[in-house]
Amino acid sequence: MKVAFLLSIDTMGYNVSIIGSGNVAWHLALHLEEAGNYIEYIWSRNPANAQKIVSKLFQGEVAKTLDFSKAKSQIYILAIPDDAIKEIANQLIVPENAIVCHTSGSKSISLLENIDAQKGVFYPLQTFSKNKKVDWKNIPICIEATDEFSDFTLTNLAKSLSDYVYFLDSTQRKKLHLAAVFACNFTNHLYSIAEQMLENADIPFEILHPLIKETALKATLNKPADVQTGPAARKDITTITQQIDSLELMPQWQKIYKIFTKEIMNNNETD
Amino acid sequence: MKVAFLLSIDTMGYNVSIIGSGNVAWHLALHLEEAGNYIEYIWSRNPANAQKIVSKLFQGEVAKTLDFSKAKSQIYILAIPDDAIKEIANQLIVPENAIVCHTSGSKSISLLENIDAQKGVFYPLQTFSKNKKVDWKNIPICIEATDEFSDFTLTNLAKSLSDYVYFLDSTQRKKLHLAAVFACNFTNHLYSIAEQMLENADIPFEILHPLIKETALKATLNKPADVQTGPAARKDITTITQQIDSLELMPQWQKIYKIFTKEIMNNNETD
Repeated sequence: MKVAFLLSIDTMGYNVSIIGSGNVAWHLALHLEEAGNYIEYIWSRNPANAQKIVSKLFQGEVAKTLDFSKAKSQIYILAIPDDAIKEIANQLIVPENAIVCHTSGSKSISLLENIDAQKGVFYPLQTFSKNKKVDWKNIPICIEATDEFSDFTLTNLAKSLSDYVYFLDSTQRKKLHLAAVFACNFTNHLYSIAEQMLENADIPFEILHPLIKETALKATLNKPADVQTGPAARKDITTITQQIDSLELMPQWQKIYKIFTKEIMNNNETD
Repeated sequence: MKVAFLLSIDTMGYNVSIIGSGNVAWHLALHLEEAGNYIEYIWSRNPANAQKIVSKLFQGEVAKTLDFSKAKSQIYILAIPDDAIKEIANQLIVPENAIVCHTSGSKSISLLENIDAQKGVFYPLQTFSKNKKVDWKNIPICIEATDEFSDFTLTNLAKSLSDYVYFLDSTQRKKLHLAAVFACNFTNHLYSIAEQMLENADIPFEILHPLIKETALKATLNKPADVQTGPAARKDITTITQQIDSLELMPQWQKIYKIFTKEIMNNNETD
């Protein structure tokens, strides 16, 4: 069985089934097939959603149950909400020697412990929207596995999609997920605050687009702390005081302004 | 005099002198010349710094004083720190009908009121580092002016550099500057926090680069609030609680986490 798996890598890709029909499931199914793998089944609580993905594939079908004991897939990917992993995992039946993995950044591999299979995690570090094509070659994929063979197999599957494959254990992956919450989710909220401020001043948000893109790019070419700019980094007290005052009517934004300004000033002090 | 200015636009560019020798002065001097204008003088408190810019230009020289009464320049750009504008402006002497402008996002045009000249603001909305080339064609330049002729002249000068020229009054420009502090300076601090978290977990910061760039790009293609993702947007209380607990030893980061999470959850509620 293992030999057959090994042989299959270069010759014919992996046989994969996907549990879930959200954005991650959607992107994974389409791109795994594009990368030379075979999608055997898509399962969803709502079969109509699974059918939508299947209709975009060259082959594959909607799974009627979570009993895959007769299926051919070597790999079963749970691309479902974090809170559903344990419940679905406990119902899942897969063939002997199959690998089951989830795609969550913040959840431990141990959520899969009750499944009679080899276990892993296959976490693509990207934000997916159904209608926006993403460049998989540049999406980091973080692998974890309970055994060497699953590690090898999932790493190969990941390499069929991406040039950036990392092995992280559950503790590291949790920390990475938290870092991503700060660098991306919270960043997007700052964009949103800026957009509302400009809207209130009758200025199109587009005016900030080049600066937003340049700031992101700059942070990937340097250590972010080394390229910190703005009134706090310059310790420009006149501007800081005036900006705090101007936020008097928006206490939440003022609070954010004060915390960030204090932190940036402290960081520059200890340099 | 006005006719000569008007004629000069297409035929020979503007004659410009720059007061200052920091990053903005450096980039403006080089790119205004590249765009077909003439740099007559560079002035700096430290003449050696002015000389460094002059040495990169085809023509131009270091100004010995702030008395430009014999100079030919039509436009004088104060590219100096915010806190120095008033002091330098009060010493500046320029020819009759010349235009003096500053380049500050947060300072009013009224700082120039004591100068016997037409006044304006020429604010390029970008973050400049001396060693990094920037694509001026895409940098928004915000113009303000005390009169129509200065508006026309500064707008033309801006258009020689950029495809995106906006007219904003001092109140609007201040709001834009504050929005940029949130969307760019504070965002960079979030990148910096993420980088420190990953360093503590022995994970290379590079792993976040694609997500950082994609998040920025996504915010320029949508209303940021519409593409908010993450545990707070999903109201995933299990993950939120676990992430707050994991920040117990970093009270400042925990505070930021709580404020952003609360705000994002509230925003999604009122949708």
